[in-house]
Order: sequence, then structure tokens, then C-alpha cells
Amino acid sequence: MTAMRTERDLMGERQIPAHAYYGIQTVRAKENFPITGYPPHEELIKAFGYVKKAAAKANSQVGALNKTIAEVVMKAADEVIEGKFNDEFIVDSIQGGAGTSFNMNANEVIANRAIELLGGEKGDYLKVSPNTHVNMAQSTNDTFPTAIHIACLNLSHGLIHVLNELIETMTKKEDEFDHVIKMGRTHLQDAVPIRLGQEFGSYRRLLARDLARIKQSVDHLYEVNMGATAVGTGLNALPEYIEKVTKNLAEMTGMPFHRAENLVDATQNTDAYTQLSGAMKILAINLSKIANDLRLMSSGPRTGFNEINLPPRQAGSSIMPGKVNPVMCEVINQISFQVIGNDHTISLASEAGQLELNVMEPVLVFNLLQSFSILKNGIHVFKEFAVDGIEANIERCRELVENSVGIITAINPHVGYETAARIAKEAITSKRPVREICLEKGILTEEELNRILEPKEMTNPGIAAPDLIFGQDI
Amino acid sequence: MTAMRTERDLMGERQIPAHAYYGIQTVRAKENFPITGYPPHEELIKAFGYVKKAAAKANSQVGALNKTIAEVVMKAADEVIEGKFNDEFIVDSIQGGAGTSFNMNANEVIANRAIELLGGEKGDYLKVSPNTHVNMAQSTNDTFPTAIHIACLNLSHGLIHVLNELIETMTKKEDEFDHVIKMGRTHLQDAVPIRLGQEFGSYRRLLARDLARIKQSVDHLYEVNMGATAVGTGLNALPEYIEKVTKNLAEMTGMPFHRAENLVDATQNTDAYTQLSGAMKILAINLSKIANDLRLMSSGPRTGFNEINLPPRQAGSSIMPGKVNPVMCEVINQISFQVIGNDHTISLASEAGQLELNVMEPVLVFNLLQSFSILKNGIHVFKEFAVDGIEANIERCRELVENSVGIITAINPHVGYETAARIAKEAITSKRPVREICLEKGILTEEELNRILEPKEMTNPGIAAPDLIFGQDI
Amino acid sequence: MTAMRTERDLMGERQIPAHAYYGIQTVRAKENFPITGYPPHEELIKAFGYVKKAAAKANSQVGALNKTIAEVVMKAADEVIEGKFNDEFIVDSIQGGAGTSFNMNANEVIANRAIELLGGEKGDYLKVSPNTHVNMAQSTNDTFPTAIHIACLNLSHGLIHVLNELIETMTKKEDEFDHVIKMGRTHLQDAVPIRLGQEFGSYRRLLARDLARIKQSVDHLYEVNMGATAVGTGLNALPEYIEKVTKNLAEMTGMPFHRAENLVDATQNTDAYTQLSGAMKILAINLSKIANDLRLMSSGPRTGFNEINLPPRQAGSSIMPGKVNPVMCEVINQISFQVIGNDHTISLASEAGQLELNVMEPVLVFNLLQSFSILKNGIHVFKEFAVDGIEANIERCRELVENSVGIITAINPHVGYETAARIAKEAITSKRPVREICLEKGILTEEELNRILEPKEMTNPGIAAPDLIFGQDI
Amino acid sequence: MTAMRTERDLMGERQIPAHAYYGIQTVRAKENFPITGYPPHEELIKAFGYVKKAAAKANSQVGALNKTIAEVVMKAADEVIEGKFNDEFIVDSIQGGAGTSFNMNANEVIANRAIELLGGEKGDYLKVSPNTHVNMAQSTNDTFPTAIHIACLNLSHGLIHVLNELIETMTKKEDEFDHVIKMGRTHLQDAVPIRLGQEFGSYRRLLARDLARIKQSVDHLYEVNMGATAVGTGLNALPEYIEKVTKNLAEMTGMPFHRAENLVDATQNTDAYTQLSGAMKILAINLSKIANDLRLMSSGPRTGFNEINLPPRQAGSSIMPGKVNPVMCEVINQISFQVIGNDHTISLASEAGQLELNVMEPVLVFNLLQSFSILKNGIHVFKEFAVDGIEANIERCRELVENSVGIITAINPHVGYETAARIAKEAITSKRPVREICLEKGILTEEELNRILEPKEMTNPGIAAPDLIFGQDI
Repeated sequence: MTAMRTERDLMGERQIPAHAYYGIQTVRAKENFPITGYPPHEELIKAFGYVKKAAAKANSQVGALNKTIAEVVMKAADEVIEGKFNDEFIVDSIQGGAGTSFNMNANEVIANRAIELLGGEKGDYLKVSPNTHVNMAQSTNDTFPTAIHIACLNLSHGLIHVLNELIETMTKKEDEFDHVIKMGRTHLQDAVPIRLGQEFGSYRRLLARDLARIKQSVDHLYEVNMGATAVGTGLNALPEYIEKVTKNLAEMTGMPFHRAENLVDATQNTDAYTQLSGAMKILAINLSKIANDLRLMSSGPRTGFNEINLPPRQAGSSIMPGKVNPVMCEVINQISFQVIGNDHTISLASEAGQLELNVMEPVLVFNLLQSFSILKNGIHVFKEFAVDGIEANIERCRELVENSVGIITAINPHVGYETAARIAKEAITSKRPVREICLEKGILTEEELNRILEPKEMTNPGIAAPDLIFGQDI
Repeated sequence: MTAMRTERDLMGERQIPAHAYYGIQTVRAKENFPITGYPPHEELIKAFGYVKKAAAKANSQVGALNKTIAEVVMKAADEVIEGKFNDEFIVDSIQGGAGTSFNMNANEVIANRAIELLGGEKGDYLKVSPNTHVNMAQSTNDTFPTAIHIACLNLSHGLIHVLNELIETMTKKEDEFDHVIKMGRTHLQDAVPIRLGQEFGSYRRLLARDLARIKQSVDHLYEVNMGATAVGTGLNALPEYIEKVTKNLAEMTGMPFHRAENLVDATQNTDAYTQLSGAMKILAINLSKIANDLRLMSSGPRTGFNEINLPPRQAGSSIMPGKVNPVMCEVINQISFQVIGNDHTISLASEAGQLELNVMEPVLVFNLLQSFSILKNGIHVFKEFAVDGIEANIERCRELVENSVGIITAINPHVGYETAARIAKEAITSKRPVREICLEKGILTEEELNRILEPKEMTNPGIAAPDLIFGQDI
Repeated sequence: MTAMRTERDLMGERQIPAHAYYGIQTVRAKENFPITGYPPHEELIKAFGYVKKAAAKANSQVGALNKTIAEVVMKAADEVIEGKFNDEFIVDSIQGGAGTSFNMNANEVIANRAIELLGGEKGDYLKVSPNTHVNMAQSTNDTFPTAIHIACLNLSHGLIHVLNELIETMTKKEDEFDHVIKMGRTHLQDAVPIRLGQEFGSYRRLLARDLARIKQSVDHLYEVNMGATAVGTGLNALPEYIEKVTKNLAEMTGMPFHRAENLVDATQNTDAYTQLSGAMKILAINLSKIANDLRLMSSGPRTGFNEINLPPRQAGSSIMPGKVNPVMCEVINQISFQVIGNDHTISLASEAGQLELNVMEPVLVFNLLQSFSILKNGIHVFKEFAVDGIEANIERCRELVENSVGIITAINPHVGYETAARIAKEAITSKRPVREICLEKGILTEEELNRILEPKEMTNPGIAAPDLIFGQDI
Repeated sequence: MTAMRTERDLMGERQIPAHAYYGIQTVRAKENFPITGYPPHEELIKAFGYVKKAAAKANSQVGALNKTIAEVVMKAADEVIEGKFNDEFIVDSIQGGAGTSFNMNANEVIANRAIELLGGEKGDYLKVSPNTHVNMAQSTNDTFPTAIHIACLNLSHGLIHVLNELIETMTKKEDEFDHVIKMGRTHLQDAVPIRLGQEFGSYRRLLARDLARIKQSVDHLYEVNMGATAVGTGLNALPEYIEKVTKNLAEMTGMPFHRAENLVDATQNTDAYTQLSGAMKILAINLSKIANDLRLMSSGPRTGFNEINLPPRQAGSSIMPGKVNPVMCEVINQISFQVIGNDHTISLASEAGQLELNVMEPVLVFNLLQSFSILKNGIHVFKEFAVDGIEANIERCRELVENSVGIITAINPHVGYETAARIAKEAITSKRPVREICLEKGILTEEELNRILEPKEMTNPGIAAPDLIFGQDI
């Protein structure tokens, strides 16, 4: 049987496992919110460590907090940062109360560890009080958002890193496939030739814009509302404390945090998160489009487009031997759907803010951090296990171009849209090549056709040499 | 210059065009809500005609409303039902106030027409008052939801009709293509043979479930809250009136309306709409999947799957002559996206209900009626201009099957998964037929292969005759 | 150092921890999909146990699977059902490949356990093969959907149970508060009196419809596609097997499973899930509305509505002493947002199905099972810790009614809307009671006012006795 | 009977009203897409005018288009820009085909008007061909996106203007209400005092960030893909033309357009739109939050918070006389829901792009332009009819603060959280003032209380003078 200690608050008593660093408020929250079974994200725990450490130091600096207490609180916070107490953070990711339970869980763990460092017994809050000392001059309403910012920033670095890597891979593929002429398709119908490298160049540029959007969104996170306390008025926080706490945070984390200009605004509004999530949603949409393109181009091997090969990663079927599926693309699609759904939840939570606070932040941050994590994880393996190893089926690509009717488009400026349309129709119906029909009908000479229908040339502007231009002589 | 008349209310005066049947409240709403530029849906106007007529009759029946007034009100309402005053309904589809402006617009138009029928001058509300008479024993909060129900029901009949027609077409195609063997694809990769008719059979059954879902959702609309007045308590409505008004409505519309058992519930909750919209969203998702399948199967003509042809409907490109695109499928995708987005808006509006009323009903009903309309319109042309005329490229389908590696699956139970996988790999690498490799390696006899690899047989259970079963003798 | 064994497939070799029951395909999937860190839901693992057991028995019954092998496979499956191997299911919840990795993980765990039961060494798949034996006559494409159905059904029972309990609580509160007259509000503005019991009656009925919607959606899950194999054609499955496997499943689970009439349809379409999720989304919307109402009515204690008290559950603030927040309502809001976001992801995944299969099922089922779990968990604590203990502030409610202007509405039918509006305006401007002004102006007698303004009477139809009716004598 | 002319294309003949400027492709599209009944947005028509004019000039400049033809085409395009032919744009807003029908409608209208200007008969396309001349060196796939950019830019100017105005109004209110002390609320529960001006300051800053987000998103629109033609390779467009066409467009519109660096990318990707829509979605979320706050603060008049008055705009009820509702806030909520739903549709459409083109652009742009319009319209009236006229109920605000328990928070640092919590509990239970209990229990002196509980002081940091700090002396 686990040894227990008794803690009490205004609502009564609760038994706490004697070894536990968390206390009665954590236990109440655990009891109230048995929702997802998911504990707080580790980056969020770590971030709380930084917040509490910075606050303890600032409180000590302004003379509000006894130096001995400040020291043990900071030491305990350091251990939280190191991840030593991750198992003591037991409140559920989805919880009522705007993150109060997260904050109180942190306060209790740090207080009890601090008490221990002072040689006391866990639960002896006269030594170090979770609220009076650890939470001094703080509220959930400034510490929780600040911790979210820190956690998002740390996760964003990982995401930015893998996104950069994926962009580099796309650049490599753009070069590698620059000479591969393939058929372009619009509406899934044969259009005009394009180079496979151009496809990857398009992906590269798209992802580069995504990267810029994410970086830009992340930049807003350096503004934090420490010192806002309950509603942004800074009640119970000394001006000197407010000044110092953010400075401390910046030093401790090495990140250029600064105080929000208007703390009331920074306490109640969550647009920094919706913007972040929005940037990730757009990235998700774009990744899904790219994954779909790769799935289309690699469809086959015998009954699809079969223009590229994705590296085989695992047996594709438990019943169909030899089947290999584009699983790394499919997981990107699914991550994208998850991120888009998460953005939906985040938007709902953001809109539900009322007056001085958005109490829906726990579900908001749960989804936000998940989006960061799964995008980072997914992009990494997508790059490593799929894009890096893509091969072009050059012959197949060439055959499809030569066999197509879409090249008729190049003839258009030379003979007019209506004539060209008639040739196209005949080519489709008769299953004969466009070139053959043009020659047979005397519409263009062989020499002209050679010039106009050169596939590589078709993939750049300029084919329509002026002397061939139609419409001048009307 | 337009002649004007003056109307006044507690907030002051407004000039109204002398010819207008609407009055001061409508003009105020017009001024307040210049949002979308879209007037109320015609079915909603018509529905208000029925509501007002049923109420006037009921009020007259219970002796609360002077018979002469009741008669002219009912006559005016009849003209609203006939659509004679559609142009007089000028309040915007998106408006504040839970539909009060819709209701007041209706009250004013009917009052002024009734005054006119009595030989009076428009605006002489002592003769017939929009609020005291036309709106007697009513509130926006019962008339507006009831009108929504009527409008949805009328629109749902159209939707159900075209959906039924599409299902019939799918049934025809299921039969027509029953003999067309094609390659099945999973993950866009070659899987095992299937019959084209089976694809259409799958669409048929899917849509049949959608039909059932929509019908089931529509059924809830026969329950209306007339008599609820402001908050469902029926304040200002006599019990006899409440009984009669719904009965009248049922008789006048020919629809089996009955009074909601609990009027408080029926006044504040909007789940009947979210359920309807939800059913339409699922239909939209399914239509989009079907449209995507058709676009895939008809991709080409030269560089795609090219298994089916969709009827050409219009030139597909302003620059690429002869191009024909699957435009009827694409419009279905887009309608689906719109309906899914509409469902989102509807959900947000539904969640925003507070206490005794959901004041967000105007935007809710705007989206709900639009979803009905565009689904109905879209399904009709999709059926007429696309599905009806689909043709199978039988030869192409057959070639793809014969050329495929996926048929190896049928060999699986006879030789075991691991052996089959090795054959598949060799077939893919060497680009040789599966059958050839099996024979060469003496894995199966020609006779066995003939039996096992018969494409038609592969599209039904039962091919694996017991004497060939592997695993018995381990 | 962990002892390892070597396994190989067509792509090469992998080292597997010697103690592990999973094998090479699981390890490949683990490597490919390090996405969420969440393993499969326990109900999904259990469900796979049932599927594999039912299939092994059916294969044995039709003579396709050696009886000894069948027996050990069934025994191993039983242990999976009992949860003994939960830790061996290590593939990520979000994974490419339509669930193939889930299925292969199950196949490998069961095969290795079966080998062990036969006295063999793990990895000796000649004894029992994951694909040839455990997966015999099966595909991911029938086993995975079937397992999803079983898991959803099991979770749905829990959800239905707690929802029933919540409805009962609402019924009790409806009775308990039947006599509490309070002010009704529309647009958050004073409307007319209502009884607090009527509010809860409205919640009861709303939730009862949600229950019906969920039950109805769940019913579709009894239709399963076992025997469909890869694309629904039943390739490699004997007709006798198909018949028996579902029968076995029904017997083993005690649930009335039956074979889908059309296996092609049942294999590629996911509307059963979107319908389920849709029903849960509507429940979520409705729960959120109820939670919002409770938060509004309990707002205060001094500066809000303060009509009801929610049971205090935990300290509401780390800085504001004595603060108690409606945390159980807030967690319901957040669960609702999560479920609505999940529905979004599910819809995206459903729409992305292509041709014979929806490969996005892993993310779909991840969200679906989560919605079930968090709704069940949340409703339980919401009922226990919030609704059960709600108390009415009867005095406060009465005062607000008596003090209100909204009761003027009851006077409306007796004096006409325009006169009533003038009295209302005067009452608001002068801050005097409506009754006083009516008397002073001689508009109604004291006796009439007593009758008309009786608050309890206002909460039911019928107050407007005929002799007081206005408009008869025009 | 309308006189008709006959036009023909490869698919056959169609009768066109003789007076019509549109032609056969428009008629086909009209027939194919009878979906929403909404014609193209007027700004989109105007934008097409600019595109066609710029292209005609460039084609003439490079000698590809006969000068006489170029001149009449430009003149016709000018008339389109002026709105003279708005009624001739009859294709539906939701249409298959990536906007081809929009483009062809524009080509036909301009061609026929040009023919007329040359003295010809409408339909005599030998004079001026819609495809060969008006569409010269263009594709739908460059003209349509370019036109979308122009239309969005024009609409964005309006939105930015009204948003600026709203921000100015918020600034005025921030000043006006700077001295109004009111109770802050978190979780809808009494928190600590705040100034009403601080609330509006928070709205101001939030909206200022929205403005920045929108401006930033809009900036991407100056990059256009004219010259890309079908798939971005510029096939059929001379390099000199490509250079000139965008320059012309910039001159004609006065907007700094420049050519997209990579035309393949710019032709297939739609992230500029999702970013725009995302920025508008965040604005919508924030506006909805503000509207909700205003609705809460103005709730009442007798049974709500009643801290502010919104200007009355219209009778709030057809049954409850004198009722005035926050309709201008409610319409903002509804516009927000619409914009959020639109963003959903836009995201779905964006994700559905495939390979060289996103064919779902019509529904995307329909929603995008609608979001611009309704936000602009709504913000304008919200500012004019609601925010401008907000009044504070200063007395009421003061009373609520003085009566509150939340002010106990200020005592916290002086007595510790636990003691303060006990006082708070007693205050709530006994319904007595916090100050009285503190004095009675001798916890703080009257002088101390006067200093600590000064409401104005509580709304700024710094109240906790060091000599009162608790925790120093532990």
C-alpha cells in the first residue's frame, strides 16, 4: 500500500501519495479531468520550469521574495527544466479552467521539491507555499500563455529545421530532374509538356513560402505577458518585478523575449496562436497537395501514370504479394488532415474567449503543440524515406509526351484556335499522331513542325517565333 | 422622384417609398444590414406566407382576431405564397436579430396589402397592424423556425427527387458495365481485378444510404413550434390557438405538421438543422469521392487511366484546342466543398445559441437553404450531363488487367504469400507477365493458371477451389 | 544489451528484439511512422483479436487452415483480446497505408505467440506465418474496418451509458426546479419569465435526441465486410468462409454482426464513420450550448447573473483567493471543440477515399475513437461533478423577474403592441416598474394587472383570457 | 420572341440571343452550371477587363496582334472595366473547369463588342476571335488567377479602410472610457477591477494586428502569373509579351504588379488565397470575440451585466414591446461564422489542386470575394451603428466593483493566499463586504485597506508597496 500524506484546502482534505511532489490542487484536477489520458506536453512542462525560475529570481531581485526561498525555488525549477519531474505532471491535457491546473501542478511540484531542498517534508507549505511563493506576483493568466510561447518556440525550431531540409531536397530534385520532359496535366487531362524538375521547383517555392509564413508567425511569440497577473492590469506585481521577470526569462532561455506593450490585450487575446496554427494549416494543405501529386505520378506500376518511383518502405499489403504503396505520402496526407482539424479546434477555442480571458487555452495549446510535433515528425520521414529517393521513369515520361494530343497547343498560334481544335479532334478520334495529321493536311511543313513540336522547347516561353505568328495579317 | 410616405416608431421617423408594401421596420433593417446583397430565399418568403395565414386563421377561429381583418390578412398571405411580393422582401440574408427583421418584413408586407384590400392607404396601421394583428400570438421565435421548416421541406423534396434519379442512373450503369473487367486500385496502385459495374454498384449503395440519411433528417422538420411565442412558454398564445395554428398549417401546406411536444426546447435548440446539414455534408463528401473516382478513371485521354469517357460538355481550354475536361465532376467537387463549408458555418451558428434562443439563425438558414439548392441543382446536371453518358473503354480496361502484376494475389493461396511476393517482384523488375514466370519456374501448371487467373472469376469470391488450398498439409 | 533476432522480407533484413512478439513488418512501420507517439487504442487491439480469432476458426471450419494451427492462432488471439499483448502493438496511430501496419502488427504478434504455443521460436514463420495463416483469406481492407466497427461499438456502449445518466440527471433537475421562476433571456436581453425547470427540460429533450442519433448511427456498425479481402470482390476467400467468419464474430463478441450485402461498397466507403462522427459532433455542439448556458446562469457571484450555483470543484485561481470557476462546464466546451475538430479531420479523411479503398482510415479511426473516449469521460464527470449538484438561487431569480421590464409582453395583447412599447420605454428610462406606470396611466386596473402579471402563469400558455383580448372590436 | 443568332463549335450549334455579347461557350457553361444563381462578382468582371486590355496591348506591342484588332479589343475591355457589360457575364459563380467559363465569357463579350466597334455583326468571329485574338498568348490558367488578384486587391482596399476606421473608433473609446472602473471577469466570474478604456484598448490592439495580417497577405497579390499560359511554361507566349503584359497591367490599374518569379509555381499553387482567407478568418474570430464581449457587457437592461449601452437600432421583437437587441453585434457574429465557413471551403478547394493546376478555383474565389465583401460591409455598420455610440453605465460599473469579492486579490500579497482565501469564502457565504471582514478580524488596518483597495490603483501595476509585502520575513 502506498504511503499517503494529507493535504487540505478550503474545500476539504485529500490524500496524496507520500512520494508525490504534486499536491492537493493537482489531485483535485486529476479527479476532475480524466479526459484524454494525455499528460501535458514535455515542452510545456519544461517551459513552466523557465517561467517559475524567472519569476522567483525577479521576486527575489525586487526584495519581495526571501532569498533562501527564491534559491530553492529556482533550483527546483531547474530540475523541472531538465525533465526530472515529468512524471509528476499528471493533469490532463484537456482540462477546465484556463490552465490553472497546469500552473498549480507546476507550483506544487516546485514547492515540494523546494521544501525538500530546504530539508522539509513534502506538504509543509509553511516553508514554501505553492501560491504565495512559487506563484508570487503571477497568475495562471500570465504564466500559462508565457509557457505556451516558450514551448511553441522550442517546437518551432524543430519544424523549421526539417522544413528547411525538405526544401533542400526539393532543390536537389529540381536540378536532378531538370532534363526530364513529361506531360503536364490540368484537370487530370493531358495538357502540354513540362519538365519534371519544374514540378519540384514549384514544390520548393511553395514550401519556401510556408517556411516564411511559419517564421513570421513564430516571431510574435517573443512578446510575452509576464507581469499581467490576473487580467493584465498587473495587480499584485511590482513594476520593477514586471521589468525584470521577462529580462530573466530571456537570459535563461536565450530567446529574445520582451514584455507585451499592452498586458490586458496580451492576456485575453489568442490571435498569436490562431496565426501560428493558420500558418501550419496552410503548410498542411500544401504538403497534402504535394503528397497527392507524388501519389498520382507514382501510380501504377502497370495501370497508372508511372512517371516516378517512390522508394519502397514496407510490404504494401497483407494479401497482395509484391505490392508497394506510397505510404510516406499517405502519412503526410493524414498528418495534414490532423493539422487542419486541429486548426479548427484552435479556432473554436480562440473564438470562445470572453472578456478578460480565454479559458479554452488548454485544448488550444494541446492541439497547437500536437500540430508542431506531428508536422515536424512527418516532414522528417517524408523527406528521408520518400522525397530523397524519388526516381524518374524517364522513358515512360517521354513516351507519354510523344503520344499525347496536348502538344497541339503549340500549333495554336500558327494556325488559329479553331483549326487546331479540328486537328485535335481528329487525332483523338482516329488515335493518330497530331504531327501526321498536320502534315497530311498540309497545314504546316515538316520543318515548321520540327521547330514547333520540340518538347524541350515547349517547356519554356518563346517557341512562337514571330514569323510564324498568326493574326498579323488579318 | 419617388413619392414617399412617413412611418414612425418609438425610435423616430423614416421615409418609405409610397408604393412599398414593406414599412419602417424593414427599412431600418435594410439600413442596418447591407451585408451580402442577397435577399431572403424565395422558399422562405413563401413559407412565411403559410405561417401568417395559418396564424390569422387560428386567431380568428379562437375569436382573438376580428374576422374581417383575418380574412384580408389571409388573402394577403396567399399572395405572398404565390410569390407576388417577392420584391418586397428586401432584408438581407445575413442580419442581426434572430430573424426578427424577416418576420417584421413579412408582417409589414401583409399588413399593408391587407390595408389595401380593405381600401385603406399603405401605412395606416390602425386598420391592420403588423404587430398587433398580423403577428398576433406570434413571435419571431416561433414563426421564423416554422418558416425555416417549411422552406427546408419544400427544398428537400427537390433534392430527394434528383438524388433518386442519380441512384437510378447508377443502377443502370451497374448493369450496363457488369461485364467490363477492369483493374481495381488501392492506394492508386494496381490491386486486383474488379468489374466496372461493381464500382457503380458501390456508388449506388452509397448514395442510397445518403438518401436515407436525408429523408430521416427531413422527418424531424414536421415538428414545429408555432405557439411557442417568445421563449417557448406560449405567453400571449391561447391554448386553443396553439392547437389550431399547426393544424391549419398542415392543411394549408398538405404537410403533416404537428406541434413540438416541448415548445421551450423547440424554440431554443437548432439540432434539427445541424442534423440536416450533417446529412447533406456526408452526401457532399460522398459525391466528391465519386466525382474524384470518375475524374481518375477518365483521366487521359493519352496519359491517364482512360478507362471511361465522360460526355464532352464544353471546350475545356481557351488555349489548348480539343481539350475536354471533366467539368461536371469538378462542379460536383466544388459544390461539395461549399456544402461542407456551409455545414461549418451552420455548426458555429448552432453552438452559439444562448439560453432561450439562438439568435444566429439567419446565417444558419442562409447556408442551410443554399446547401439544399446547390446540391439539388448540381446533382441534376451531374446526372444529366455526366453520369448518364459515361462510356467504358472496354479494350483499354482489359489490357490493363492482363498487363498487371496485381493478379498475383489470386496465386497467393496456392503457393503462399512469400513465394507469391517473390514472383511479383520478379515480374515488376523484369517487366514480364506473372503467368510466364509461374510457368517457367514450374510453380503452377498452365491448367491451374488458366483456372486461377481467369479475370472474371477473380471479381467474385470462390475462385480458390479447395483442392488448391495451401496450408492444409503443414 | 537486448538480445535480437533477425527477420527478413523482400526488402531485406531487420533486427528484432528477441523477446518481441511483433516482427519485421511492425518494425518497418515503427521506423516509417514516428508521428504522434500514440499507440493504437486498446479497444482497437482487442477488436483485432476478435477478428483474427473469428477468421482462424472459419478457415479451419472450411478446411483451409490446418486445425492445429487454427487452435493456437485462436488461443493467441484470445490473449490479445484479454489485453496481454497491448505493449506489443507499437505502430503509431497515424500511419500510411490504410491500416496495413496495424493488421500486420496483429498478424505478427499472433503468429509469434502461436509459434510459441506450438513450442517454436519466435520468428520461425514456417510454423505459423503471419500472412499465410493468421491473415488467411483476409486483407487489411476487410479486417481493419471490421475491427474499427467492433471498437466503436464497445466504446459506444460507454458513451450511451453516461449520456443516459446525464439525461436522467436533467430530468431530476427539471422536476426539482419546476417551481423556480426566473427571467428568460433572448439575445442576452431580458425577455419573459420562464421556469428553471423548463430550461433543464429543454436540455433533457435535446440530449435525448442526441442519444437517438448516436444509437441510430451505431446500428450501422453491425454490418461488417469480412470476406471482402482486398477490394470487396472476395478474391481468395471461399464463399463458405465468408459465411462463417461473420457468424463466428457475432458469437464471439455477442454482437449481432452480419455481412454487408455489397462487399465492394463496404470496403471502399466510410460513410458509417462520418455519420457516427457527425452524430457526435451534434452532441458536442449541444453540450457546448448547455455548458455555456450554465456558465452564464452561474456567472457572478456578485457581478453576473448568479441564478444558479455550480458545485465548487477546485480552487479557481492561483492568484485570486476564493475564486471558484465553472471548470466542469469549461472542460465540456473544450471536449466539444476537440470533437468538432476531430469531425473535421474525419470528413477530410473520408473525402480522400479513392476508388477501391480509403487509405486514410488510420487518422480517421484515431479521431473517431478519441471522440468516443473523451465524450464518454467528459460527460461522466460533467454529470457527477457539475449537473448533479446544481442549486438554484431562488430569491435572486425571483427578484430579477419582478424587477424586469420584459413582463410588459403579457400586457401586449390587452393594450396593443404600440401602447405597450410606450410603457416599456418609459419604464426603462425612468427605471420604474411596469406595473406602476400602467396603474398611473389608468391603462389597466390593479385586478387586471394581478391576473396578467402573475409570473408563474406567464410561463405557460393561456394567460390571455378571452375577455381581455384586444383587437376584437376594431 | 427574342431574335437569335446561331453559333457553332466542335460540339455543335447553339442559339444565342441576337442582342447578347456573350457567345456559344458562355451559353454552354450557363447550361452546364445552373448552380447558385449568383453571377460573377462585379470586381472580378472589372478585373478581367484589365487583364484582357493589358494582354491586347502587349500582343500588339510585340507585333503578334494586328493593331486595329488590338485597339478595338482594348476599347471593349475598357467598357467592361466601366461595368457596361456586367449583365453579359452570366456564368455561375460555381462552375467546373478552373474558371475557363469565366474567361471564355470575357473573351466572347469583348470579341463581340470589338466586332461591333469594327462595324461587324456579333458572332462574326473571323473579324475578332475570342480565342485567337482576345485570348492571344493567354490561358484561363494565367488570366483567371491574375483577375482574382486584381479583384481581391480592390476589395481589400475597402476592407482595410473600414478596419482602420473601426480601430480609430476603438481608440476614441479607449480614451473616453479611461476613467470608468469596472469589474474584470475571468471564466465569467468576478475577477479584479479593470478600466473600461482598457477593454477597448485591447480591442484596438487586437484589430491593429488583424490589419497588419491582412495587409501582409494582400502584398503577395502583386505577384501575378500573366504569361504562364496553360501550365506555367509560357507555351505560346513570347518572352517580350510576358515582360510587357504585367507592365501594362501595372500601368493600367495603378497597382505595382510584377511577374511571379516562377510561373509554374504561380500557376498551380493557391497559397496566396489560403493566406488571405486565413487572415480574414482570424479577423473574423477576433471580431466575434469582441461582439460577444459587447453583448455580454450590454446584457440586461435589468437582468444582465448592464455595464454599457449599445445604440438602439430597431425594434428588437415583434412580440416583446420596448425590447432592443444588440443586432449590430449579432450580425458581426454571423458574418464571422460565414467567413470562417468560407475559409473552410477555400481550404478544401486549395488542397484539391492537382499537378499543374487547381481546377477548384471558381468556388475558392467565390468564397474569397464574399469574405472580403461581407467583412467590409459588416465592419462599416458595426462601427457606425454600434461601437461609435456605445455609452458606459458608470454608476452601475462602480457599484459592481464595490460590491465584489474579487478585490480580495489585492490583499493577497499582504496576508498570503491561504488567509485571503478564508476571508473570501466568508465574504461570499455571509454576503458581507471584504473590507468589513478584514477590519473585524484585525487583519489589516483601515488605512492599509484604503490604500490597497483603491479601485483605480488596482487597474495598474504597483499597488503592492514593498512595506506591505508578505513573505520577506519567513
